[in-house]
Amino acid sequence: MEVIVALIVILILAKGLGELFERVGYPSMVGEILAGVILGPSLLGLVEFNGTIRLFADLGIIALLFISGAEMNLDSLARSRRSSASAAIGGVVVPFGLGLLVGLAFHLDWTESVFLGTVLSVTSIGISVRTLLDLKSLKGRIGSTIVEAAIFDDVIGIVLLALLSSFALAGGQGVLETFLPMLAGAVILILLVTVGRGPVASLYDRARRASTHEMSYAVAILIGLILATVTHLSGLHYAIGAFVAGLIIGPPIRKNIHLFESLSDFAFGFMATFFFASVGLLLHLSVDHLTSLLVPVTVVLAILGKVLGGYLGALRPLGREDALTVGIGLVPRGEVALIIANIALIQGVIGDKLFTAVTVVVLVSILVTPTLLKGRLG
Amino acid sequence: MEVIVALIVILILAKGLGELFERVGYPSMVGEILAGVILGPSLLGLVEFNGTIRLFADLGIIALLFISGAEMNLDSLARSRRSSASAAIGGVVVPFGLGLLVGLAFHLDWTESVFLGTVLSVTSIGISVRTLLDLKSLKGRIGSTIVEAAIFDDVIGIVLLALLSSFALAGGQGVLETFLPMLAGAVILILLVTVGRGPVASLYDRARRASTHEMSYAVAILIGLILATVTHLSGLHYAIGAFVAGLIIGPPIRKNIHLFESLSDFAFGFMATFFFASVGLLLHLSVDHLTSLLVPVTVVLAILGKVLGGYLGALRPLGREDALTVGIGLVPRGEVALIIANIALIQGVIGDKLFTAVTVVVLVSILVTPTLLKGRLG
Repeated sequence: MEVIVALIVILILAKGLGELFERVGYPSMVGEILAGVILGPSLLGLVEFNGTIRLFADLGIIALLFISGAEMNLDSLARSRRSSASAAIGGVVVPFGLGLLVGLAFHLDWTESVFLGTVLSVTSIGISVRTLLDLKSLKGRIGSTIVEAAIFDDVIGIVLLALLSSFALAGGQGVLETFLPMLAGAVILILLVTVGRGPVASLYDRARRASTHEMSYAVAILIGLILATVTHLSGLHYAIGAFVAGLIIGPPIRKNIHLFESLSDFAFGFMATFFFASVGLLLHLSVDHLTSLLVPVTVVLAILGKVLGGYLGALRPLGREDALTVGIGLVPRGEVALIIANIALIQGVIGDKLFTAVTVVVLVSILVTPTLLKGRLG
Repeated sequence: MEVIVALIVILILAKGLGELFERVGYPSMVGEILAGVILGPSLLGLVEFNGTIRLFADLGIIALLFISGAEMNLDSLARSRRSSASAAIGGVVVPFGLGLLVGLAFHLDWTESVFLGTVLSVTSIGISVRTLLDLKSLKGRIGSTIVEAAIFDDVIGIVLLALLSSFALAGGQGVLETFLPMLAGAVILILLVTVGRGPVASLYDRARRASTHEMSYAVAILIGLILATVTHLSGLHYAIGAFVAGLIIGPPIRKNIHLFESLSDFAFGFMATFFFASVGLLLHLSVDHLTSLLVPVTVVLAILGKVLGGYLGALRPLGREDALTVGIGLVPRGEVALIIANIALIQGVIGDKLFTAVTVVVLVSILVTPTLLKGRLG
């Protein structure tokens, strides 16, 4: 029951602060993350990021990405694929290079420097998507380019991480053992979106005609959870599977407005709040390390690196203005960076100073992106 | 992530079997419980009733009772209060007496016999409500009498259990320490339903006008969770608080059909399934003990005792026919009985044989009630 009390406290503070931020023109997500910062180890230390909170955060990002996928049109997404791939590559290569250079310039060892490059290269799909949703710009051409680039970017980032962990982190697996399942996962997802689209949609369609009243709701959630698990088991982020699930059964769900809104309530009114709050819970801010020069330098280069990389990658297909918007849209870092940093800290691969730098990058990147994007979209 | 796999497996089997039972004319809940039996220790032993599953089961019964409360009309409920109180008292006294006698007749010791009487006296609110919902008879006069009687009954049963545990179970608290918080909890609930109804409803009303789109959904869930926690902390079953929360903010929720259906989807399409499956997971059926004469005798008297007790209690206010229906409606036993039995088994207060008898009572009572009620309602 103490767990339920923790869930209540998170919901109250996150929804309250979210409303406050919404009223002054920021995405409510910022307030929800701030709630986690306040409740977590950085300030009050009231709520612990334990197994249950993590489960709710996982379900939150799954629900969030599922609904984002369901909102999108698969065919318009296919059209933006080339520009997003090049934006993603640019958005990974530049921050990775800059992170590596910062690390070496600050006399961190080689492993720490590669770690910093890797962490800076992973955009947070969840936070990117929410920012776009809040600005009502998810469905446009630029919105889909950003989201797809964030997905590509996640795949590349995870490959980098797998390489890093197989070489540096304790208990890492061999390269082959890491890549084969990921390859299998990617192939499964591609097959699902192409060949499997029809069968899955018709399976869902059959569920819709079941005798049990809430069956379509349950089956929609199930398909999201299953694809999320498949991608997770293959080593990719489960958010990707949830997003693909939403893409596949999006068309029938969008046709049933009540069902779509019901699933949307489930995601934004309940589950996703735990994801955003947990981003705040994962932050460990300590004043000692904030004074180090490493922190501001890393933050500035993390933001400039993504903007520049995304811009360069998207420049040819999209042109200057839109390429810049895509670059800014890729700035948010989030839970992946924090979780990796947490593991690396515990295993002794990185020190407290670098850990603090990464958490400040996450916080600042989330705060500045909506402001930077606002004028440019819609 | 293994937790999510467990949730997926439960959802698939429970929804599948639920649909099957629904098609042959049984409440889908029976299929969902059966899914728990199949996955749990009785058969496959695939899914463990651990902390997470318990949390989801708790959230499930909270969601279920919240929606049941929201469906009800507080004023019509008030009118049935007298008949339900007497039905509850009859429905507790008779099964308690019969349980005690069975225990003594089978040469169980005094503590085990009192335990058996106590366990047989607690109707499962959750399963009673779902049975009525499935038969579309929750809102009528008989439906509200049954639900209110089940609530009274739960209060009485928990008082009995508190007495039992303070005398017999290891680590039990003193009588005063048990009763004072429960009294406080009951007073809080009564104040909420009477004086507090206006303020809570207007608080909810303000949330409805918030800038955040899903705020009314989030606040509805929050109010349910908070009242559930209040009753739980005071020693009562949290289902009671959730039910009262639904009663209080039911009128504004019912006015917004989309919101009501959205919360209803959340309860029946997702959360409540884990509650019903967990009833099955808690069952430990073993063939050795099934052959004991204690089992069939207990089952028959558990059912007859509730029917007779409820009938006698409701006879004067409702008349023969309706009193019999109320008695049958009180037959289902469920998670409370199983959880108490589990604790008692672990603490050595009861033996395997008695434990099996209790679990068979739960299973049979759930299976026979819909069939017995079907002809009599609607």
